[in-house]
Amino acid sequence: MEQLKERILREGRVLPGNIIKVDGFLNHRVDTALLSDIADEFAKHFDISDITMVLTAEASGIPLATICAQRYGVPMVFAKKAKSDNIEGGLYQSEIFSYTYKKKVTLIVAQEWLGPNDKVLIVDDFMAKGYAMQGLVDIVDAAGAELKGIAIAVEKGFQGGGDSFRERGYDIHSLAIIDDATPGHIVFRDEQ
Amino acid sequence: MEQLKERILREGRVLPGNIIKVDGFLNHRVDTALLSDIADEFAKHFDISDITMVLTAEASGIPLATICAQRYGVPMVFAKKAKSDNIEGGLYQSEIFSYTYKKKVTLIVAQEWLGPNDKVLIVDDFMAKGYAMQGLVDIVDAAGAELKGIAIAVEKGFQGGGDSFRERGYDIHSLAIIDDATPGHIVFRDEQ
Repeated sequence: MEQLKERILREGRVLPGNIIKVDGFLNHRVDTALLSDIADEFAKHFDISDITMVLTAEASGIPLATICAQRYGVPMVFAKKAKSDNIEGGLYQSEIFSYTYKKKVTLIVAQEWLGPNDKVLIVDDFMAKGYAMQGLVDIVDAAGAELKGIAIAVEKGFQGGGDSFRERGYDIHSLAIIDDATPGHIVFRDEQ
Repeated sequence: MEQLKERILREGRVLPGNIIKVDGFLNHRVDTALLSDIADEFAKHFDISDITMVLTAEASGIPLATICAQRYGVPMVFAKKAKSDNIEGGLYQSEIFSYTYKKKVTLIVAQEWLGPNDKVLIVDDFMAKGYAMQGLVDIVDAAGAELKGIAIAVEKGFQGGGDSFRERGYDIHSLAIIDDATPGHIVFRDEQ
């Protein structure tokens, strides 16, 4: 998606440790007009008439998943991290390693809001090693729901998460795959 | 807002400890059509032509704040909880007590995305004792920005947070104020 790649080149920055900072428009300050365009772009690839919900993980996936759910006319469910008092029993849980926080966290979805009749599109703003994504996929599997696809805005291709899902046959679509990133230098993967 | 109150009465549940569970449409599974109507309702009270951004705190405030920002044509910024590696120096910080998680957390906003020229509408899905809200207000003050108002979907009136802000002269507007809640029994405050 050219518009997204241009924003990354213009406003993104690469920090030590291969961190790609796009928090001016994607995951701290959020440009909702861009998110709407991203949601439209996902709809060209996935059959969004055949999903019953959008699933993401808190926190930074929520803005994009919200806009997608609104565009597609389905509810958005976000997996919570760790247990709060507001969620009773009856939970799907998946323990993941958070690359962002450098520690294990547990993703939680109430069984009430995800079940065997659901057709799920997972949406996230970012994919690196794919640990959080695996947690979401495990939760969809545990619910007996059908995973219709994985929609990602920015994929750090050099960290292998996306390719690991591709190799296993998942329908994953990323709008900007970054194959190399050093300060001042960002290289996108060629479109297929 | 009658539509919101009806949803709370129909789908909400009161759990021990005065917890009001509305996670089927507001803060776990999210009904984006309802959020759009809530955003329109806020726009009747606040002069949304005179704001430069919507501010909220992760995680459950993000869906509503995203929809509001989209409707009002401004960016949405969400305060993060605790420090992740993706945020460099130059931070506004405010330590709050999280009623949900029963522990202290630090709200963080990058100084890059909030400054003295900003006119801020704070949006949140829920207010109880108002600790998280105070943290957001402190961050707006620290930035030298102008706080134009506080927009809340559901306020637990019996926990006093909202009234504390009203008494101090803040322009706070809640669409459903719950003054009493026991299992099977929810009482809303009369509209002024």
